[in-house]
Amino acid sequence: MKQLSDAILNSQKSAIRKLFELLLQSSDGISFGIGQPDFTSPDFVNKEIIKALNEHKTQYAPALGLPTLRRVVAQKFQKENNMKGVENENIMITNGGSQALQLSFAVLSNPGDEMIMSSPNFLSYIYLASYYHLKLVEVPRLENYGPNLDAIRKAITPKTKFIMINSPNNPTGYVYSKKQMDELVQIVLENDLYLVSDEVYENFLYNDHIHISPGSYDEMMDRTLTLNALSKTFGATGLRLGYVAANKEIIELMEKYGQYTAAGVNHPTQYGAIEALTKGNPDIPQILQNYDKKRKFTLKRLKELQFDVVEPYGAFYIMPRLNPNWNMTSEVFSNDLVKEEHVACVPGNGFGSYSDYSLRISYATSDELLEEGFNRIERFLKKRSLT
Amino acid sequence: MKQLSDAILNSQKSAIRKLFELLLQSSDGISFGIGQPDFTSPDFVNKEIIKALNEHKTQYAPALGLPTLRRVVAQKFQKENNMKGVENENIMITNGGSQALQLSFAVLSNPGDEMIMSSPNFLSYIYLASYYHLKLVEVPRLENYGPNLDAIRKAITPKTKFIMINSPNNPTGYVYSKKQMDELVQIVLENDLYLVSDEVYENFLYNDHIHISPGSYDEMMDRTLTLNALSKTFGATGLRLGYVAANKEIIELMEKYGQYTAAGVNHPTQYGAIEALTKGNPDIPQILQNYDKKRKFTLKRLKELQFDVVEPYGAFYIMPRLNPNWNMTSEVFSNDLVKEEHVACVPGNGFGSYSDYSLRISYATSDELLEEGFNRIERFLKKRSLT
Repeated sequence: MKQLSDAILNSQKSAIRKLFELLLQSSDGISFGIGQPDFTSPDFVNKEIIKALNEHKTQYAPALGLPTLRRVVAQKFQKENNMKGVENENIMITNGGSQALQLSFAVLSNPGDEMIMSSPNFLSYIYLASYYHLKLVEVPRLENYGPNLDAIRKAITPKTKFIMINSPNNPTGYVYSKKQMDELVQIVLENDLYLVSDEVYENFLYNDHIHISPGSYDEMMDRTLTLNALSKTFGATGLRLGYVAANKEIIELMEKYGQYTAAGVNHPTQYGAIEALTKGNPDIPQILQNYDKKRKFTLKRLKELQFDVVEPYGAFYIMPRLNPNWNMTSEVFSNDLVKEEHVACVPGNGFGSYSDYSLRISYATSDELLEEGFNRIERFLKKRSLT
Repeated sequence: MKQLSDAILNSQKSAIRKLFELLLQSSDGISFGIGQPDFTSPDFVNKEIIKALNEHKTQYAPALGLPTLRRVVAQKFQKENNMKGVENENIMITNGGSQALQLSFAVLSNPGDEMIMSSPNFLSYIYLASYYHLKLVEVPRLENYGPNLDAIRKAITPKTKFIMINSPNNPTGYVYSKKQMDELVQIVLENDLYLVSDEVYENFLYNDHIHISPGSYDEMMDRTLTLNALSKTFGATGLRLGYVAANKEIIELMEKYGQYTAAGVNHPTQYGAIEALTKGNPDIPQILQNYDKKRKFTLKRLKELQFDVVEPYGAFYIMPRLNPNWNMTSEVFSNDLVKEEHVACVPGNGFGSYSDYSLRISYATSDELLEEGFNRIERFLKKRSLT
């Protein structure tokens, strides 16, 4: 039989999903692996979806999304993200943040173009680059997981089309500072680039860190593709409801591409999204207080166990480096850990080229499981006389 | 600013959507343009989605879809389509038939590969070919809209990767006969090709025509990607719930690609799909009886108005050719018609290279609107002394 797609053959099944499957084989598994919060979508959101179903709104919605939802999204970007010029014509509704990413890569890319991102970073960016025949330029993060802006500047060539950022970051938890964002914006403007900003973790911030949308800089309106979704803020990863803001021409191209590759988004769910983005998630302050406790606990335990830790100020991940004395890649570590102790952490090589000795731990789980999970990691290390 | 994606810049916004927008400007518009049935999803399906929402099933479902739904889909293919070997491992759940198409093109294609289809045909196939950097080979249909299998055979080169079919067909309503399917299968086998079979209209058949799935031929199990969706059979175009059957390796590649480009399908909707595909749509016989009446009425009126008509035996479309004496392309015809009479028919150039003088008419609308629409078309032609 003839050869299937090289790009897909060469991509790896997500390490997170693989771990998940291993974990399912045990009855007492604890997952620090999953990229979703431990709450589900609020009843006031679900209620509107149910209402739409009862009203038989099950035929096609417009390819760009319901006009009312697009208006609510535009207002959200104006109010919450300080992106002043955003109107309906700048908005498309997508099948989750993932399709927003896909559309962004699709409209920006011609084969051979280059894209720059800091590594480690979210895995999808890496494979989307290969699917769209981009040359992916990974710039290693600084020791504290901040972006190496000097190195990014040096990595730019005439073929560079866009820079991809994700702040607050999955997997490192890193949050761009105002100063860093100012400099990144300068880099983008000076080099006539686009910037794709994946902001799905914008609400998960600790220690008074704030979220800055690059689309809020006046000169960046036309150059920034701002991606977001209900998934993380509303515990609605399974509703697959995302959205993107960009200049009008880009949205028009996304509409065309979307028509032929997806034909729109689940219609009743869009009514839930209108409600969600109008009201916001009132539970977020309480959730953040809980997550901050979990974050601090995780940080403390990792330090006690002699991991090399950078304190994260965003999202719900932490990315410790294995102690160099352990002489172990994180792939070996996490495989052995899941087999012996039934605890799943994602190995760093699932996030690019510069994290073979790091683990991603999601602390968005119950206090009990978090505690028990770390007790098992301690046992795992003690058995090997490593801590 | 740097140039955006050439492939998307070069693709046209769907003519159907454009017409729709024109039509929305009038208060008495009649659409013969829309590719969806005139009923919505049954209450017994919606009820299960509502139940899942009430049970807070709003987090990620597996990227391949819920195992129970995949089993129900496998059983559906076995029972209804006579595809004997289909198991869970051969099934992926998708965001509508459109994403099933996208995934099929993605996994089969390397840039420069060739794909063959009969034209006119569904527009998405044309643009998906360009998005995946395929060379699209359009083979004109015979006068009766049947596939020209000799010409298809001659169009094959060493670079041909797959043939794309859609029977019952959008836009022509053509249904493959058993003899034609036998021959197509021979062509695929003799030339080591894949076959993508889009079967979303399988239930819309008239005059005792039957639907034959190429995946039901033993030797074709591994070579056929069979696509379907709830959209047309269940009046659920807006639920975006599709599915695909293929060999295990292809499904594994689809899973990977899907993880990074979409991250699964709306979770609660999958519970509705389990119910839908277990029970089937009990209203289909009644719906078909109605559609058959509409089909016959449409046929009669088109003949009276001196269009050149081929009787369609499937789907809910008819594709008349404009009378050659009218000296008019269907683009001019449909534009003028929508402006003067507020009736939207899709011009044939929205379906490939060989239908500039044809229109697609969807008769899935109310008897009253169908009658009034044709009265307006008659007035339109009489004003021009064309009938």
